[in-house]
Amino acid sequence: MPRCRVTRRVHFNAAHRLYNPKFSDDWNRTTFGKCANPNFHGHNYDVDVTVDGEIDSETGYVFDLTQLQKLAEDRVIRHLDHKNLNVDVPWFEGLIPSAENIAVVIWRQLCPALPQGIRLQVRLWETPRNYVEYDGG
Amino acid sequence: MPRCRVTRRVHFNAAHRLYNPKFSDDWNRTTFGKCANPNFHGHNYDVDVTVDGEIDSETGYVFDLTQLQKLAEDRVIRHLDHKNLNVDVPWFEGLIPSAENIAVVIWRQLCPALPQGIRLQVRLWETPRNYVEYDGG
Amino acid sequence: MPRCRVTRRVHFNAAHRLYNPKFSDDWNRTTFGKCANPNFHGHNYDVDVTVDGEIDSETGYVFDLTQLQKLAEDRVIRHLDHKNLNVDVPWFEGLIPSAENIAVVIWRQLCPALPQGIRLQVRLWETPRNYVEYDGG
Amino acid sequence: MPRCRVTRRVHFNAAHRLYNPKFSDDWNRTTFGKCANPNFHGHNYDVDVTVDGEIDSETGYVFDLTQLQKLAEDRVIRHLDHKNLNVDVPWFEGLIPSAENIAVVIWRQLCPALPQGIRLQVRLWETPRNYVEYDGG
Amino acid sequence: MPRCRVTRRVHFNAAHRLYNPKFSDDWNRTTFGKCANPNFHGHNYDVDVTVDGEIDSETGYVFDLTQLQKLAEDRVIRHLDHKNLNVDVPWFEGLIPSAENIAVVIWRQLCPALPQGIRLQVRLWETPRNYVEYDGG
Amino acid sequence: MPRCRVTRRVHFNAAHRLYNPKFSDDWNRTTFGKCANPNFHGHNYDVDVTVDGEIDSETGYVFDLTQLQKLAEDRVIRHLDHKNLNVDVPWFEGLIPSAENIAVVIWRQLCPALPQGIRLQVRLWETPRNYVEYDGG
Repeated sequence: MPRCRVTRRVHFNAAHRLYNPKFSDDWNRTTFGKCANPNFHGHNYDVDVTVDGEIDSETGYVFDLTQLQKLAEDRVIRHLDHKNLNVDVPWFEGLIPSAENIAVVIWRQLCPALPQGIRLQVRLWETPRNYVEYDGG
Repeated sequence: MPRCRVTRRVHFNAAHRLYNPKFSDDWNRTTFGKCANPNFHGHNYDVDVTVDGEIDSETGYVFDLTQLQKLAEDRVIRHLDHKNLNVDVPWFEGLIPSAENIAVVIWRQLCPALPQGIRLQVRLWETPRNYVEYDGG
Repeated sequence: MPRCRVTRRVHFNAAHRLYNPKFSDDWNRTTFGKCANPNFHGHNYDVDVTVDGEIDSETGYVFDLTQLQKLAEDRVIRHLDHKNLNVDVPWFEGLIPSAENIAVVIWRQLCPALPQGIRLQVRLWETPRNYVEYDGG
Repeated sequence: MPRCRVTRRVHFNAAHRLYNPKFSDDWNRTTFGKCANPNFHGHNYDVDVTVDGEIDSETGYVFDLTQLQKLAEDRVIRHLDHKNLNVDVPWFEGLIPSAENIAVVIWRQLCPALPQGIRLQVRLWETPRNYVEYDGG
Repeated sequence: MPRCRVTRRVHFNAAHRLYNPKFSDDWNRTTFGKCANPNFHGHNYDVDVTVDGEIDSETGYVFDLTQLQKLAEDRVIRHLDHKNLNVDVPWFEGLIPSAENIAVVIWRQLCPALPQGIRLQVRLWETPRNYVEYDGG
Repeated sequence: MPRCRVTRRVHFNAAHRLYNPKFSDDWNRTTFGKCANPNFHGHNYDVDVTVDGEIDSETGYVFDLTQLQKLAEDRVIRHLDHKNLNVDVPWFEGLIPSAENIAVVIWRQLCPALPQGIRLQVRLWETPRNYVEYDGG
C-alpha cells in the first residue's frame, strides 16, 4: 500500500518564561532578553501533529484524524492549555520551556500511544513567524 | 481630497488572566472558566491600528505608516510586549484585561497622539479565531 | 461604558449546488456555471459572528465568547456541518443556498437568541477569496 | 429583499516607488525613506472588491462573483499586473502610487461599470500587515 | 547546478463522503462518523505541487511554474473542481476518496507528465487544519 | 541531546524581472511571459530560515532566534529590501533573479555565518501560492 504523511493541527494558549536557575539573573537577561521577564508572557501555540504510515485499504486512512485529535487533546492539550508552563506543568521541572523543549515533550507524550510502524513528527508554532520541528532524532 | 482608511498591524506577546477580585473564586471560575487559572496563560496579540482621513496630495498618504508604527511601538507595544498584563501594566489596575478592555486601553493611548481630523479604530486579535474592535464609541 | 464589537469564528463543511427549479437547466447552467453541477460540490465555510454592545464592568465582556460559540454550535453549526445544504437542511427549502442566503439564514437563526441591545453581524467565508456580510438590513 | 455585502479577492504584482518630482531628492528621502529608492521595489497586491446591494430572489446573488472577477480583471488587473506603476500605467501620471492612491484609482475604474444601486468598496493590501480602504468618500 | 524544490499551490472545490460499500452502514458510521453522511459534504481543497530538480542555468528555473500550473489544471483540477468525487470521478471507483487517496490519485496523474530526473510531492489540504503528503513511496 | 529544526521567518520587498541577455527579446518573452516585462514588477518576499542542530541543555535553544534574525537582517535583508534585484544587487550580476536563484544566493550568504554542525535550509515565498526550498544540495 502507498505510504503517506498525515497532519492534524491542534492548539493551546499558555504562559511561560525562559530562565535557567543555575545561572545569575544577569546571565538570564543577557541570554534570553525580554523572554526572561519575571512575571511571564505567553503565546497562542499551534501544534502540527504528523503521522507517517501506510494507507489502510479498508478505510483509506493512515490514521483516523479524529482519533489523533482525541489522543492529542488527552495526552497533551489538556495538560498545557491555559496553563503556566513553568509553574503548573510537571514536565518542565528542571527543563526550560523553550519552543524546542516543548516540541520534544509533546513528541514524547504522543509517541508511545501510536501503533508500531507509525512515525511521528511534531511542529510547534510559537508565533506565526517561528516554529520548531522534532521527529524523535 | 478623497478620504480613506489606512491600517497597520503590530503585535505583542503577553500573559494575563481574567479575574475580578470583588467576587469569590467560585464566581470567577464559573464566569471565566480556564481563563481564570491562577498562574496566568498568554497570547500572541495582533493589533490592527486604523486611521481615517483625507489623502495628502503632496505625499499620497493619509498618515505615514512608518510614523504610525513608531507611535504604536512607543505608546503601546513597549508597555505590553512580553509583560504580564495583570501584574506589570498599571493601565490594568482595577480593570480586567479582557480583549475588550485591552482594545479600549490601546485606543486611549493612541488617540491623543493623532492629529485633529483623523479618526482611529483599534482591532485586537487575541487568537486567530477571535477579535475585538473599538473606535472610541 | 465603552461600546465595542466582538467577533468569534466558527466553521462547518458542507455540500451544495446552485440551482433554481423555476428555470430550465440551460438557464441554470448559464447563470451558475459549474456551481450548478447536478451532483453537488462543497466548501469549508468559516463564519465570523460579530456582536456589538457595551462592555460589562464586572466581567470586561460584551458577550462571553464561550457562550457565543455554544449558541452558534447549537443553533447553526450542528444543523449545517457535514450536510448537504440542498437536501438535508429544511431552511433552504425554496431558497438557493448561495453564500448570500446562507449568511441571511445564519443571522436569522442567531439573532433571536441574543439579549436586547446587542447588534449582530454575520460574515460567511465560502473560500479564502470570497465572503458575504449580513447585519439584518 | 435583504441587503448584504459581497467581497471577491483578486491580486496583481507590481513595481513602484514613492517620489514627488515637485520636491528635492532630500525631501523625498526624508518623507518616503527607502520607498523612494530610485530603481523601484515591489509588492504582491491583493484587492478585496466589495459590492453592497439587495439579494436577487431568482439567483440568490447580490452580484455574480464570476462577473465581478471578470470586471476586475478587465478594468483593473490587466492594466497593473507585472507592471511598473510609475512608468507603465498612465493612471499614475502626476499621482504618487501610494497604497491610498492605488485604492482610489481602482475604485474609480470599477465604479462606473456597476449597476445603479450597488455600492462599491475597495480594500488594497500592500503587504499582509498593511492595507487601505476606499468607498468613494 | 544547485538542486532545489519548487512548489505551486492550486485549488478545487468538491463534494465527497467516506463510505466503504463492503461493510454495513453501522460499520461506516462508527468508522467515519459524520464523514459518512449519505448526502455528501464538501471542502475547499488546496493542492501544493512540489517538484525537485536542478536549476537550469539559462532560465533560472527548476520547472516553469506557469507550465506546472497548466499541467495541474489539465490533468487534475478540471477533473475534480466542482465535482462529486464519489459520483462524478472515475478515479475513485472502488477507492474511498479520503484525503490520503486523493493525494495518491493526484500524484499518479501528474507524475507521468514530468520530465525524467524531476521528483514530485503532492500536499493536499482538506481544511486549513489538516493535510496529507505523498511522494510516490 | 535531542536534535531538532528551528525556523524564523523574515521578509523583504523588491522589484525584479526575468531576462537572459544571452537570448533575444522574443526568446525571453516566450520563456518568461509577463515576468520579462522591461520595467520590472515586484513581490513581498518571505524567507523561512531553518537551522537544524542539537538542543543546548543550558539554554533550551538550538540557535538563539534573535541572533538568527539579526544575522539574516545583516547578511541578507538590508541588501535586498526595497531594492531592484537586477539593478541594485551585485549578487545577481550574470544570474537571473528567479525565486530559485534568490533562494540559493540567500543560503550562500547565511551558511558561512553559522557554527559547525548546524545545517541550514532556506524557503523563499515569492507569493502566498509559490515557494522554493534550498538546503545546499
